Amino acid sequence: MSPAQDDLDIAALLERGRTLAAPVLRAAVDRLAAPMDTVAAYHFGWIDAEGRPSAGDGGKAVRPALALLSAEVPGSPPEVGVPGAVAVELVHNFSLLHDDLMDGDEQRRHRDTVWKVHGPAQAILVGDALFALANEILLESGSVEGGRAARRLASASRKLIDGQAQDLAFEHRDRVTVQECLQMEGNKTGALLACAVSIGAVLGGADEATADTLEEYGHHLGLAFQAVDDLLGIWGDPEATGKQAWSDLRQRKKSLPVVAALAAEGPAARRLAELLAADAKARAALGEESADFDEAEFALRAELIEEAGGRTWTADEARRQHARALTVLDRVAMPDRVRRNLVALADFVVVRQK
Amino acid sequence: MSPAQDDLDIAALLERGRTLAAPVLRAAVDRLAAPMDTVAAYHFGWIDAEGRPSAGDGGKAVRPALALLSAEVPGSPPEVGVPGAVAVELVHNFSLLHDDLMDGDEQRRHRDTVWKVHGPAQAILVGDALFALANEILLESGSVEGGRAARRLASASRKLIDGQAQDLAFEHRDRVTVQECLQMEGNKTGALLACAVSIGAVLGGADEATADTLEEYGHHLGLAFQAVDDLLGIWGDPEATGKQAWSDLRQRKKSLPVVAALAAEGPAARRLAELLAADAKARAALGEESADFDEAEFALRAELIEEAGGRTWTADEARRQHARALTVLDRVAMPDRVRRNLVALADFVVVRQK
Repeated sequence: MSPAQDDLDIAALLERGRTLAAPVLRAAVDRLAAPMDTVAAYHFGWIDAEGRPSAGDGGKAVRPALALLSAEVPGSPPEVGVPGAVAVELVHNFSLLHDDLMDGDEQRRHRDTVWKVHGPAQAILVGDALFALANEILLESGSVEGGRAARRLASASRKLIDGQAQDLAFEHRDRVTVQECLQMEGNKTGALLACAVSIGAVLGGADEATADTLEEYGHHLGLAFQAVDDLLGIWGDPEATGKQAWSDLRQRKKSLPVVAALAAEGPAARRLAELLAADAKARAALGEESADFDEAEFALRAELIEEAGGRTWTADEARRQHARALTVLDRVAMPDRVRRNLVALADFVVVRQK
Repeated sequence: MSPAQDDLDIAALLERGRTLAAPVLRAAVDRLAAPMDTVAAYHFGWIDAEGRPSAGDGGKAVRPALALLSAEVPGSPPEVGVPGAVAVELVHNFSLLHDDLMDGDEQRRHRDTVWKVHGPAQAILVGDALFALANEILLESGSVEGGRAARRLASASRKLIDGQAQDLAFEHRDRVTVQECLQMEGNKTGALLACAVSIGAVLGGADEATADTLEEYGHHLGLAFQAVDDLLGIWGDPEATGKQAWSDLRQRKKSLPVVAALAAEGPAARRLAELLAADAKARAALGEESADFDEAEFALRAELIEEAGGRTWTADEARRQHARALTVLDRVAMPDRVRRNLVALADFVVVRQK
């Protein structure tokens, strides 16, 4: 398969997920009491801050694409996975709304975040509403499959929240081990991606063992996805990612490249540790806002992380998790075309630039 | 039945709810990643702000008592309703955590609220976690009844969130009709109370029609409950309620007595409207904090509300909803003892002093 062919397939897969999920997602949001419907429409990029229709960037939409593909694993049509795709998107966006507020992030997908535009109360409330909607959508059919799907979503949601709690706790700690970071990322990113890959299959009639194995594939895929995210968070092109250069370093995130670099031996790791300790001390003394400094310092940190091997380790980790995901996939019987697409999506996750 | 006997029954019913739900609730909270387990334990009053064990006031626990009774409606033992009782308590407490933060409330049950003690991020996160736990608890058995119970909880949760959105929106409006206020209270209080009364029945094997009728009883009970809450929010004894005198007036809540008074004719209603308009103007000009004034002004407002008939109307409304709840209850077949207890709980809701 040529690279051009790959690109085409991925674009079509992502587009199919967006297209099939969109009307159900919009109908779900329309159920919300005012002004939550408007705030949610802003968050999803359907309208701008003044309420005018907008052709916003709805994100990569990897999760809906996975949910629809997963319905095809047991031989059902992709449409059967739509409530799962929508529910997972709703939970993902519930977590974005709350995380942006907790983290104080002012921008997402090149736009002001909801709490910046509509205030903290609306960010909390609309996040809550999307979470509730996700459960409603899976359960309202009253089917046994809907209940099984909702159980997987509830468990994934709780892991997601655990992961955010761990991420917040790491901010207040001097050292975080690579293992702790991987566990946090497995919760924060892996669990919901894993759920996306199993939820369609459950709705499509797959047994629990098949769904569990698909979740295992999704868990490794999620870890690969997050490792790439962590690389893009430091070395990503701001034009492509929609975030500032060295975004994760500005936010003092203890992401994989940072913790891997700190865990290494040698002068670069030591120098990096010194810089971060001095920074933490200055921020503790002066307050988070007042201890900022020039761009050259971020460039230096990024260089030291690379020199200490944090960048290479993280890229290798993305490839390791990608390989594990594909190995697990071999254990599940499915139509060839579905398998090729799940492999292609896994490939996309590790080569993407945003 | 003598009043003393009534008191005894209610105390025993509430205690049974607390006792059966407590270990399951504690085990659920223990599943949360640190520090969310500690923050949740503080919220439930099991530990104090320093982490020392505490025999806190866990609230009235009307909902768990209702959930256990409802399991007895189709003839199941009360224990069958425990996952429902715990799930409803978790959703109720999720909403308290988020509402206290959105409303800026610093005290609940005589203690500092979670966001005051542990910060806004923990209030958001632990609220989210309790909401996720509620779904997990209902769904993890994998039973058909668990799925049906979760569907009712999802729908009630979304109404609860709609109600909070409406309540927040009312703060920014000059006038709110009695009808709008009742609709908001039906969502914010009625829906979850209604769910408490149906969820145990569903887990105990009741059909959907029975569960729907029980929800109707619970909805009217919830409106009666909230009308009494609105009375206590203005005229309640601070010692009993744990809130400041005229608490709802301080917070400028457009609660039932206020909107009913404003809807009335006559000089007291007009004078009240003038005072509130002047207050809103001053707060808009000077900021919410700087426009405070002396206690006599709150006393005057409370008097005007009473003079305009807002207190009487609300007390009548509590009785009307109580009567409707009991009428609906007649439509459901159930053991006599269970019916007597549901009647007694409805009576308790309208005569309580806190």
